[in-house]
Amino acid sequence: MGDVSISNGLTNSQRKSCWYEEEIEENLRWCFALKSILHTGASQYQDIQLLDTKPFGKALVIDGKLQSAEIDEFIYHESLVHPALLNHPNPKTIFIMGGGEGSTAREILRHKTVEKVIMCDIDEEVVDFCKSHLLVNKEAFYDPRLELVINDARAELERREEVYDVIIGDLADPIEGGPCYQLYTKSFYELVVKPRLSQGGIFVTQAGPAGIFSHTEVFSCIFNTLRQVFKYVVPYSAHIPSYADTWGWVMASDNPFTLNADELDQRIKQMIEGENRYLDGQTFTSSSTLSKAVRKSLDNETHIYTEGSARFIYGHGSNACKQH
Amino acid sequence: MGDVSISNGLTNSQRKSCWYEEEIEENLRWCFALKSILHTGASQYQDIQLLDTKPFGKALVIDGKLQSAEIDEFIYHESLVHPALLNHPNPKTIFIMGGGEGSTAREILRHKTVEKVIMCDIDEEVVDFCKSHLLVNKEAFYDPRLELVINDARAELERREEVYDVIIGDLADPIEGGPCYQLYTKSFYELVVKPRLSQGGIFVTQAGPAGIFSHTEVFSCIFNTLRQVFKYVVPYSAHIPSYADTWGWVMASDNPFTLNADELDQRIKQMIEGENRYLDGQTFTSSSTLSKAVRKSLDNETHIYTEGSARFIYGHGSNACKQH
Amino acid sequence: MGDVSISNGLTNSQRKSCWYEEEIEENLRWCFALKSILHTGASQYQDIQLLDTKPFGKALVIDGKLQSAEIDEFIYHESLVHPALLNHPNPKTIFIMGGGEGSTAREILRHKTVEKVIMCDIDEEVVDFCKSHLLVNKEAFYDPRLELVINDARAELERREEVYDVIIGDLADPIEGGPCYQLYTKSFYELVVKPRLSQGGIFVTQAGPAGIFSHTEVFSCIFNTLRQVFKYVVPYSAHIPSYADTWGWVMASDNPFTLNADELDQRIKQMIEGENRYLDGQTFTSSSTLSKAVRKSLDNETHIYTEGSARFIYGHGSNACKQH
Amino acid sequence: MGDVSISNGLTNSQRKSCWYEEEIEENLRWCFALKSILHTGASQYQDIQLLDTKPFGKALVIDGKLQSAEIDEFIYHESLVHPALLNHPNPKTIFIMGGGEGSTAREILRHKTVEKVIMCDIDEEVVDFCKSHLLVNKEAFYDPRLELVINDARAELERREEVYDVIIGDLADPIEGGPCYQLYTKSFYELVVKPRLSQGGIFVTQAGPAGIFSHTEVFSCIFNTLRQVFKYVVPYSAHIPSYADTWGWVMASDNPFTLNADELDQRIKQMIEGENRYLDGQTFTSSSTLSKAVRKSLDNETHIYTEGSARFIYGHGSNACKQH
Repeated sequence: MGDVSISNGLTNSQRKSCWYEEEIEENLRWCFALKSILHTGASQYQDIQLLDTKPFGKALVIDGKLQSAEIDEFIYHESLVHPALLNHPNPKTIFIMGGGEGSTAREILRHKTVEKVIMCDIDEEVVDFCKSHLLVNKEAFYDPRLELVINDARAELERREEVYDVIIGDLADPIEGGPCYQLYTKSFYELVVKPRLSQGGIFVTQAGPAGIFSHTEVFSCIFNTLRQVFKYVVPYSAHIPSYADTWGWVMASDNPFTLNADELDQRIKQMIEGENRYLDGQTFTSSSTLSKAVRKSLDNETHIYTEGSARFIYGHGSNACKQH
Repeated sequence: MGDVSISNGLTNSQRKSCWYEEEIEENLRWCFALKSILHTGASQYQDIQLLDTKPFGKALVIDGKLQSAEIDEFIYHESLVHPALLNHPNPKTIFIMGGGEGSTAREILRHKTVEKVIMCDIDEEVVDFCKSHLLVNKEAFYDPRLELVINDARAELERREEVYDVIIGDLADPIEGGPCYQLYTKSFYELVVKPRLSQGGIFVTQAGPAGIFSHTEVFSCIFNTLRQVFKYVVPYSAHIPSYADTWGWVMASDNPFTLNADELDQRIKQMIEGENRYLDGQTFTSSSTLSKAVRKSLDNETHIYTEGSARFIYGHGSNACKQH
Repeated sequence: MGDVSISNGLTNSQRKSCWYEEEIEENLRWCFALKSILHTGASQYQDIQLLDTKPFGKALVIDGKLQSAEIDEFIYHESLVHPALLNHPNPKTIFIMGGGEGSTAREILRHKTVEKVIMCDIDEEVVDFCKSHLLVNKEAFYDPRLELVINDARAELERREEVYDVIIGDLADPIEGGPCYQLYTKSFYELVVKPRLSQGGIFVTQAGPAGIFSHTEVFSCIFNTLRQVFKYVVPYSAHIPSYADTWGWVMASDNPFTLNADELDQRIKQMIEGENRYLDGQTFTSSSTLSKAVRKSLDNETHIYTEGSARFIYGHGSNACKQH
Repeated sequence: MGDVSISNGLTNSQRKSCWYEEEIEENLRWCFALKSILHTGASQYQDIQLLDTKPFGKALVIDGKLQSAEIDEFIYHESLVHPALLNHPNPKTIFIMGGGEGSTAREILRHKTVEKVIMCDIDEEVVDFCKSHLLVNKEAFYDPRLELVINDARAELERREEVYDVIIGDLADPIEGGPCYQLYTKSFYELVVKPRLSQGGIFVTQAGPAGIFSHTEVFSCIFNTLRQVFKYVVPYSAHIPSYADTWGWVMASDNPFTLNADELDQRIKQMIEGENRYLDGQTFTSSSTLSKAVRKSLDNETHIYTEGSARFIYGHGSNACKQH
């Protein structure tokens, strides 16, 4: 085995002999050449891996699903955090449902007005894993403004009395029977989230795949559910290379969202420390202007997430509502 | 082998035991479950396959690279064709460089004003293969307004004397040493394309990957080269799921592009037969509003494609400039 | 996409862009480059595919498990058939349990003494599929000495009164709860098979993987079960490249197996039409001389397949006992 | 992403989301689920990886080719070492060409008569890598009877004057133009190896794949070359699961090999410390009794490896003759 004439030919494929493989959906695979498997762990809820991949750098993988990749997680996290905080006149207190990875807190803490961030994730092991291994978020984890709570986000919001300027949902998708479903229902938004928003407060949530074909999985329903509860609802999306898809977010409030691209750029300059890598005024204009097909199905979406509509799947061994 | 207890478990993976695999880039693979391999062929320039894939339907594969997939090729072809034709007051004559697949012609022929379409592809076998196997384009191939020419696009444009209202580049990317490089150079645009455009004519070309990381491969250089030659240049992009990336196009003219989203929608109603599946006014607004990072590197791009700058790689066995 | 400089590099991988992939066991995959997917079908019991693979030629795949490959199925079928028939003084009547592929019948029918072969397979679609697509077995399927019966092998043997000189088990492995389990039990051998053997008759069965690690799955138990029922039992094995493993068979009778390598070679000359590609005297000596580890675990095996010992798994949707 | 309902389904595949993939030959892939990538290194000649795989345990991979796997390397190394040493009346001095992994030395050092072992490998980094990471061989590496030399095996044998009772070739296959080719030629055996063998000395070499299809690559030619030089030549083979093939060795001497299975078992008891896991008398009988097809092509092989017959391929960047 391995004479030079072959091995020369293989030196290249040798460098590619280890792969991370994910089934994005049944019948579709996405494979990254692996440099190394940095850390592996497990919580009572989930398996955790930190991989070093060639195309996307360090990748956090939970239960075999890529959560975020070093080279493009900023697209996801800047999109999740900044539009809501920028549209709030003076965001001081923020509540994160999930977000144990720390990147959402990192982006929030760049806002000069922010005084207090509650990060409420149910999985302590995941939080500890990210805290020790994701160096890019180390500073955020140790920021005095951050309060880390290990609990179910719904229980925590119900328990607490104070209100928040912005509440951010950084949770797994609302698959019926899934652990987070109940954190995407109309009654949850009405009875738990809205009461915890301060006057003029804003709610924003990750909203699953938003591609031309994939947006009907959950994106359109999250949008339609939120517009039952809030006066103003803004869906937006961005292509995230490591997800091999366009991703969606929905921002909602009872105050109108009035900033145009230029005003958004000014507020970015005023409010955010450091330079955004992804989001600016024009980027958000593009992100929040959906393509024809997606726009139409959002307009026409009639499904609303309610406890009733959830056909809970039994035997899931876990009701953990995981961080995204 | 194969008792039921195993095979039940496998019935699912059995349905997924055949895969199409493409290396999108070194270290990154994209794999589709296969229903069947419908047709395979070869020309003097290229290997051709028509596959039936589970996630993306029928897929045309040339030399191991996906060219277009049934379920989303409309995104690519509507984006390539309609913005240019809609921005022209009265497009009658169109010249396609490449486009042997037939989908570009199909979209052009939906425009009521169009009287004549020249499709100039160098690879007769590919054209014949698509003509007989891509039923969705059959009508276009037999449209009396279509004139099919088998020739090198540059030679053909030089040979001809008449001018065209719109010239469309539907060719492989301008990899230096690649077969199409010379069809993306400043001198080609200046000395061959521009003279063949009628007064107010528009040139548009596919421009390679335009993702947040991939846009520097060729997209920014094509843009920068075209802005040396034309007064008005509009780069735009769209995520194409089957490509696992965002794709780019650049439209150029010496007349300004003035239509806003509503005007675009009106012209679509007036000029195009049938309903667009992808493109409308807002979609184009979004597509042509590039995200911060892409916008910045396009602004700052200094590289210009010139014959000089091309380090031609020898021994390529083919100078064929393939259809996209 | 697809410029020459890339496509040249890819022409090779292009020829390898379609793959058949099988999970030999959890954590172990075996992948063949695909030329084409020749035929696909389905019966009430199983999914059927005939693939054309680059490394192993045409491959019959049932429920996602390779059944046999053109280039090396002769190893499996010569090993299954010839040792038993050669060790019988005058084999006239043969009963095949399963064997719907036709290759087992093909090898049997090469024996000059054979007057009648019953092939009893439960899955008519599989039989028809192989009959029409496996040209190498066409002659066998149309041999007047072959009687094809579509039935459960146990029911058929119980129904019939005549006896056979050789009974051959060409069935799926005895996975407990699997469809064929009951065709490998002590009681089946004692009460159904043995009574249907003529004086001096021989029973032989495929016996699953027999590799240094895999032989404990079923090979050693089949051996141990048969030695409870028959006076003389000979286990043997051979490496089959397309299975990526060594495979096993067990031959049993109440008459001793006395032929040495030279005598076996003589009988091959006398009794078999045409030339064996795999089996001869020395080959069988090697095959039936097991390596230390395998020999030891066969000697020490205590598990016996009994109806009682089978923990039947419910909800299998099928009790079909498939051909191997 | 990653809700429980999906993640449960994936927990399993999650545990299988990282894979080692090897192209055994063009068109044929062999993939192992990965637990972790333990160590990676590189020498001036080769890339080195120690992987922890699920199906085969720790695996040493050099230039993308599996060299040996924890769970079955004993088959390869016991087969390489013991038949030769057992057939020698009193093996005291042994020379290993290659063998830097240390497993060959480990097996040799189990022989009570052995007083001195020279391990001559050209790649110091590989030797150091294995010395520090392959714990199973640690004892061997520190055995006072082992003398480690970093040099080209041919140069070293030519340099030395003493003779050896057994010389063992544990090198890459003799691919023409490959680094080891010249260590498999008739002239090398005649002019370098044979003069370094003591009276009654034995030479043995790994001899590449020996499967029913793969044995013609090099196995039959090594056999045929050795029978030009030595009076008695014994080819033998064994299936090695992690190689997905049957592997071959050839043993040669001017003294006859006379031990039968029982005598071999007795000498194993007398001469070898500890228990063999693979090799015993019957195992060797089976291994050295080749199947019909392999036997025939060895008998009929006419190709002889000579310097002349080697069409050296240039530009290999390395003339390193690697350990197997």
